[in-house]
Amino acid sequence: MDDLLMRRATIDDIPAIVAMLSDDPLGAAREAEAGHPSYTLAFKEIDADPHQTLAVGERGGEVVACLQLTVIPGLSRQGAKRALIEAVRVRSDQRGSGLGKRLIEWAIEEARARGCVMVQLTTDKSRLDAHRFYLSLGFTDSHIGMKLAL
Amino acid sequence: MDDLLMRRATIDDIPAIVAMLSDDPLGAAREAEAGHPSYTLAFKEIDADPHQTLAVGERGGEVVACLQLTVIPGLSRQGAKRALIEAVRVRSDQRGSGLGKRLIEWAIEEARARGCVMVQLTTDKSRLDAHRFYLSLGFTDSHIGMKLAL
Repeated sequence: MDDLLMRRATIDDIPAIVAMLSDDPLGAAREAEAGHPSYTLAFKEIDADPHQTLAVGERGGEVVACLQLTVIPGLSRQGAKRALIEAVRVRSDQRGSGLGKRLIEWAIEEARARGCVMVQLTTDKSRLDAHRFYLSLGFTDSHIGMKLAL
Repeated sequence: MDDLLMRRATIDDIPAIVAMLSDDPLGAAREAEAGHPSYTLAFKEIDADPHQTLAVGERGGEVVACLQLTVIPGLSRQGAKRALIEAVRVRSDQRGSGLGKRLIEWAIEEARARGCVMVQLTTDKSRLDAHRFYLSLGFTDSHIGMKLAL
């Protein structure tokens, strides 16, 4: 397990990240070819924003996991910062190996290092394995996640 | 209803915002005196971040509502931006007047104007009125909101 390297994503990681976003029951219908210019544009925006961390997990020289962390300052809770986790993916051939746990634990440590008092995320109601996974890591399913497509 | 003015919050709005955050079944135990320096520090961080909009609703010269909008770039959904809404409050004496609907509709328009394809938020499972409210505005309760205190 100790061969996982977590690092900030570079523009060259886009194809591997998009492949993971696409290889997913919910994501498959939502993504385009990895070469689509919209991904490069979005990457540059993420990379230029000091409150964003797009991270990948590398194993044996290959990108096998990703997630995005957003640090959000706020007035609530006495001016506390919170971290939002989005776009969590583990490459399908690497699942069940404890890699997801390592990935989220890395994100939790990163959030703590950035002064956040809370980490939050939403997970689709249909992702039952994900619910059990996050609960096992100490998250509480205290909220309802509402979405509105524009 | 047309007397509601939505505008970007200024540092002078902190006391009114903190009063609304505190006047809440869940928020009461979490907040400090509005003069606490942590609120000023947090306000400055929010205000300096171009991806954050802390907005207040003013009526008759008084701040009667607030919310915070965060624009989040991402690779998912073909490089789409999403907007997160946090810290939604309507002053208790103004509830039931349609003001909350105006507030969220303003946030939705702001998110659209900033190029977001989705608006999302989480609401505590205990806030039953809030669930009905967001569903009535077209949100779907498709997700579970997970939180982990650090």
